[in-house]
Amino acid sequence: MSPLTSVDPGPVTAESAADRPRRGPKGERTRRRILLAARKEFGRYGYERATIRGIALAAEVDKSSVIQYFGTKQNLFRESVYWHIPIDELSDPDPVRSAENYLHGMLRSWAADPDSPMAVLLRASMTSEEAAELTREHLTTEAVDRIAAQLDGPDARLRASVFASVLMGIAVQRYLLRMPDLAEVPLEDVERVAMPLLRGLVAPDR
Amino acid sequence: MSPLTSVDPGPVTAESAADRPRRGPKGERTRRRILLAARKEFGRYGYERATIRGIALAAEVDKSSVIQYFGTKQNLFRESVYWHIPIDELSDPDPVRSAENYLHGMLRSWAADPDSPMAVLLRASMTSEEAAELTREHLTTEAVDRIAAQLDGPDARLRASVFASVLMGIAVQRYLLRMPDLAEVPLEDVERVAMPLLRGLVAPDR
Repeated sequence: MSPLTSVDPGPVTAESAADRPRRGPKGERTRRRILLAARKEFGRYGYERATIRGIALAAEVDKSSVIQYFGTKQNLFRESVYWHIPIDELSDPDPVRSAENYLHGMLRSWAADPDSPMAVLLRASMTSEEAAELTREHLTTEAVDRIAAQLDGPDARLRASVFASVLMGIAVQRYLLRMPDLAEVPLEDVERVAMPLLRGLVAPDR
Repeated sequence: MSPLTSVDPGPVTAESAADRPRRGPKGERTRRRILLAARKEFGRYGYERATIRGIALAAEVDKSSVIQYFGTKQNLFRESVYWHIPIDELSDPDPVRSAENYLHGMLRSWAADPDSPMAVLLRASMTSEEAAELTREHLTTEAVDRIAAQLDGPDARLRASVFASVLMGIAVQRYLLRMPDLAEVPLEDVERVAMPLLRGLVAPDR
């Protein structure tokens, strides 16, 4: 329980608040500290139960700073759980190679940070319809749409969705639930066992 | 932050509380009503935030009744999210047929009830280490161990775990997140696209 550190943000308006992080490295550091604290709080308490007050405390800034930087809890949530899904960067002319890259990239990013935006958003989605809606939108437009566009043959969207489900299922069981048989083996072993499944989805004829 | 309200459970022992439901149809109905309310509350608020008081209110019984029937919030949680995983009943000498049965049985049970014990336990596991531990235990002993025992070849436990991950990933995206491309198609289509993956896990040489 850290004491509330009082920081006078000065007479800023909503517009200048939005610009604030661009004003310099100090603003940018504060902004990042708030986002990090927000992810931890949302991940721990869920969307509804996390509070601006608790996030400010964890970030060691004044509550009014959080509001000046992010406006509402909803906006702060959206920004804190936003992540770029690097489908285009990981795509390859060979769909099987693409699938390998997606699996590897996704599992690496969960491995790297248990409070990653993706993990926090998913956890929050289990108890918040608002968070679930954000997940649906984000995964559909950033992942399913773009994976489906690369697939030949029937059921492209459904296959892309099952693809995303397999990746999420493995990541959830390995990193969130830490199922022993998945969590205690090298990532390479998981990839070796999972790849034939994904290959079957993206290139059923090979 | 423990919301557990202190209630004098009266001079009942753990044993007599456990026996209570067997005393008659009225007791059994009350017990079931409490379990149903508990699943809804745990599903909605998570393990930590749900309270005996809120569960009693939802079940329209006295708080002290909940305690007499179930003892502690922890016990009530364990009982309310317990479900029998019918691996033995669904198993077939042909591992591919077994896989079909597991997929079908699992998706049917999620379809039947959004507040199913399985769904509630999983949702609670995202924000509670205690719930996550229960999930690990239950899925490992009731599903992974028994599926792995039926598999020939290398990596049996890892393949069984990936199998469970695929089922969970599809169920989560279809029923909890309601991803449009998975939720808005007939279950038969999902099974048709998912089965080749599962076949590859249980019978890689076929």
